[in-house]
Amino acid sequence: MSSLAPVLDRLDADLDASLDRLFALLRIPSISTDPAYAAECRRAAEWLVADLKTIGFDASVRDTAGHPMVVAHHEGPAGSPHVLFYGHYDVQPVDPLDLWDADPFDPTVKELEPGRKVITGRGSSDDKGQLMLFVEACRAWKAVHGGLPCKVTLLFEGEEESGSPSLKPFLEANKEELKADFAMVCDTGMWDRETPAISVGLRGLVGEEVTIHAADRDLHSGHFGGAAANPIRILAKILGDMHDETGRVTVPGFYDGVEETPTQVKASWDALGLTAEKFLGEIGLSIPSGEKGRSVLELVWARPTAEFNGISGGYEGDGFKTVIASQASAKVSFRLVHNQDPEKIRAAFRAFVEARLPADCRAEFKKHGGSPAIQLSYDSPIVTKAKNALSDEWSKPALTIAMGGSIPIVGDFQNMLGMESLLVGFGLDDDRIHSPNEKYDLSSFHKGQRSWARILAALTA
Amino acid sequence: MSSLAPVLDRLDADLDASLDRLFALLRIPSISTDPAYAAECRRAAEWLVADLKTIGFDASVRDTAGHPMVVAHHEGPAGSPHVLFYGHYDVQPVDPLDLWDADPFDPTVKELEPGRKVITGRGSSDDKGQLMLFVEACRAWKAVHGGLPCKVTLLFEGEEESGSPSLKPFLEANKEELKADFAMVCDTGMWDRETPAISVGLRGLVGEEVTIHAADRDLHSGHFGGAAANPIRILAKILGDMHDETGRVTVPGFYDGVEETPTQVKASWDALGLTAEKFLGEIGLSIPSGEKGRSVLELVWARPTAEFNGISGGYEGDGFKTVIASQASAKVSFRLVHNQDPEKIRAAFRAFVEARLPADCRAEFKKHGGSPAIQLSYDSPIVTKAKNALSDEWSKPALTIAMGGSIPIVGDFQNMLGMESLLVGFGLDDDRIHSPNEKYDLSSFHKGQRSWARILAALTA
Repeated sequence: MSSLAPVLDRLDADLDASLDRLFALLRIPSISTDPAYAAECRRAAEWLVADLKTIGFDASVRDTAGHPMVVAHHEGPAGSPHVLFYGHYDVQPVDPLDLWDADPFDPTVKELEPGRKVITGRGSSDDKGQLMLFVEACRAWKAVHGGLPCKVTLLFEGEEESGSPSLKPFLEANKEELKADFAMVCDTGMWDRETPAISVGLRGLVGEEVTIHAADRDLHSGHFGGAAANPIRILAKILGDMHDETGRVTVPGFYDGVEETPTQVKASWDALGLTAEKFLGEIGLSIPSGEKGRSVLELVWARPTAEFNGISGGYEGDGFKTVIASQASAKVSFRLVHNQDPEKIRAAFRAFVEARLPADCRAEFKKHGGSPAIQLSYDSPIVTKAKNALSDEWSKPALTIAMGGSIPIVGDFQNMLGMESLLVGFGLDDDRIHSPNEKYDLSSFHKGQRSWARILAALTA
Repeated sequence: MSSLAPVLDRLDADLDASLDRLFALLRIPSISTDPAYAAECRRAAEWLVADLKTIGFDASVRDTAGHPMVVAHHEGPAGSPHVLFYGHYDVQPVDPLDLWDADPFDPTVKELEPGRKVITGRGSSDDKGQLMLFVEACRAWKAVHGGLPCKVTLLFEGEEESGSPSLKPFLEANKEELKADFAMVCDTGMWDRETPAISVGLRGLVGEEVTIHAADRDLHSGHFGGAAANPIRILAKILGDMHDETGRVTVPGFYDGVEETPTQVKASWDALGLTAEKFLGEIGLSIPSGEKGRSVLELVWARPTAEFNGISGGYEGDGFKTVIASQASAKVSFRLVHNQDPEKIRAAFRAFVEARLPADCRAEFKKHGGSPAIQLSYDSPIVTKAKNALSDEWSKPALTIAMGGSIPIVGDFQNMLGMESLLVGFGLDDDRIHSPNEKYDLSSFHKGQRSWARILAALTA
């Protein structure tokens, strides 16, 4: 009998208890972007440290200028590789709360359809559910074998949903401690419910907040309308100018560093048969909004975007107020691919705004993180071993895919610690992460634990 | 001694008491647009009725589908004219509250500069302070002469700041009771602190709220960005398209019914010497935002506008959230002049939006009132008498001017009750109505009372 089989059995037997542990973590509202929840973020970190100590990890809460990190170490057999596993314990805000079917921080298991159970609650998929997969795989391995198959370091961040301001300083200050042979990151998704996937392309991200200031006070639109600058009008004009008729971003220099995706890669994506109708149909849409003439997979995996994530100004309450606001603001993000330079894009955006400002108004900018895109190997030995392990667990060949989101840590591991990452995750497109009614499939939670146990076995065989 | 002189003396002697009464009314937060303040609106109406009864008015709170009206009657000498005086007891919302120097509903008298005292608080200028002027003039007249110089009906509305939904039905249902020889409306301003004015031109108003609906849920911008429609982008593009480079509104048919202002009228406005730098300088701006090549007075008095009064969508809190919202909305208002048709403009705006919507998105519209512009006589006998009365009180010739705001009641009086209006008010441009730190000059409050007493005397001489 291999060393793996009893670990898998143990995971099966321990599933209910592992759910209880996840629920305890999900009940902590660790919303990192809202300062009101700072104590809850720390509570989540402390909960993780306490749990990891029960498995025998040398675990600690590590302070930063923002929310704390969790770092934990466990020795492995002599000569075994050293892996760093990364996840994040912070979650997205939950507004609008009235769109949730249940309390986002009171998780349950519910049957979505016959035979399909899901775990509900904020963070169930992004990323508490996913980070606990690896913790449970380690717990089972330790219980069965009294140790782990390799040396393991865990790094759990508390600021992933708010731009990771403390991450780079922390990596820089703890290089020696955190450097491993390679990293494993569990914050990505499967291709579909049956098909596991390894992500090898990740878009970068630049976040900007712009506030247009006009008059020094709110004005009555009857007295001043037609004469005084209206910051909402200025902002709308600027944002409205940022895409042309073909869906391309018009900010000068935006496409510098963007490469065309190789024909054979595009062909392999086309072979997946994901039409715009199918991809967008699940969210009630049908027409791709990006550059015309490109498939939806190319748009979300290999093309850069400019998105407006929030806008506000003037009177937003019930009823009507004939006011001309003194200011209006928008949160703007850019998804980057290939060699686009985040800071050049930020500067180009700011220049684009400034060029469209009336001389008596001004723009104020706030930086919200920036990271370049990542392109990992399609066929390194580690990727191949992980693919095989996933294919065994799911009885279906694992795919190598790209993804539209950003995981800045992967670039930081590469640049700061000289470490490649293996991106394996079990989220699904309908997990509603960052939205009301987030969920995580129970099969992702169960087979995800088993998948990580198999990957550990394959990498250390 | 004329019948007027002792009334003026009485007003002078009673100033402090009249301030106490105004403060009591200002302390009631009668914000009509926010349903949370419905009981406060009723309380303001009840306060007015109780006060009017002490003067001998036959006063009552009159229910409507919305906030109640106050109607009060007082007989006059046989053969005297019958005047209807209109004002509104509701006020604008007070947000953003943190920009107020003091509680908006705890009025005070404060010295703005040596020799210039002002009454502070929401509604001090718009319109509680102004409506109390006439009440105080009546009170003094009654106290001195035991009666009023003419038959007086008072109509105080509670929904002026929220589109007056109940006004037309109420006028229709009470035509006989409310019809008078002419109306007097006190909701306008002076030319400057020393120069009284009668308003003869009023812009109309169309209010619209548009919500763009895209996906059926909020989306992660990493997963869907570049593929899924972003309602903020669609909305910004629509609003950004609504003005051309010269500041003209691009909605088709918008300028139908707009006339050029006669050259001699424009010349008289130019003679007032109000430059863009002076008009806009008071609010920290310098460049007119409207149609190029026109004076600021022409822009605010005689040209139509499209203004964006509020916008919201996506994540508006602290920090950043990489979300693509499911919806975004804006409050849009149009100021109308001359013969522009409010309902044609509303329809043209809606068509403008619909024409710019992707086929998989939809727009939802909400109507927020609509009224055409008004043009009154420059030189009727009533206007001439009132001008003389004002010139006597302020020792400076009263001006006939236009104004940029809308007072829909004037059109309703004209169309439904066949009654012309005399628009006299004592607001100042720096009253910050609809804004934080609203105030009303004490000289407006004192000399305004005296002005109405003089007008009553002049009209009934």
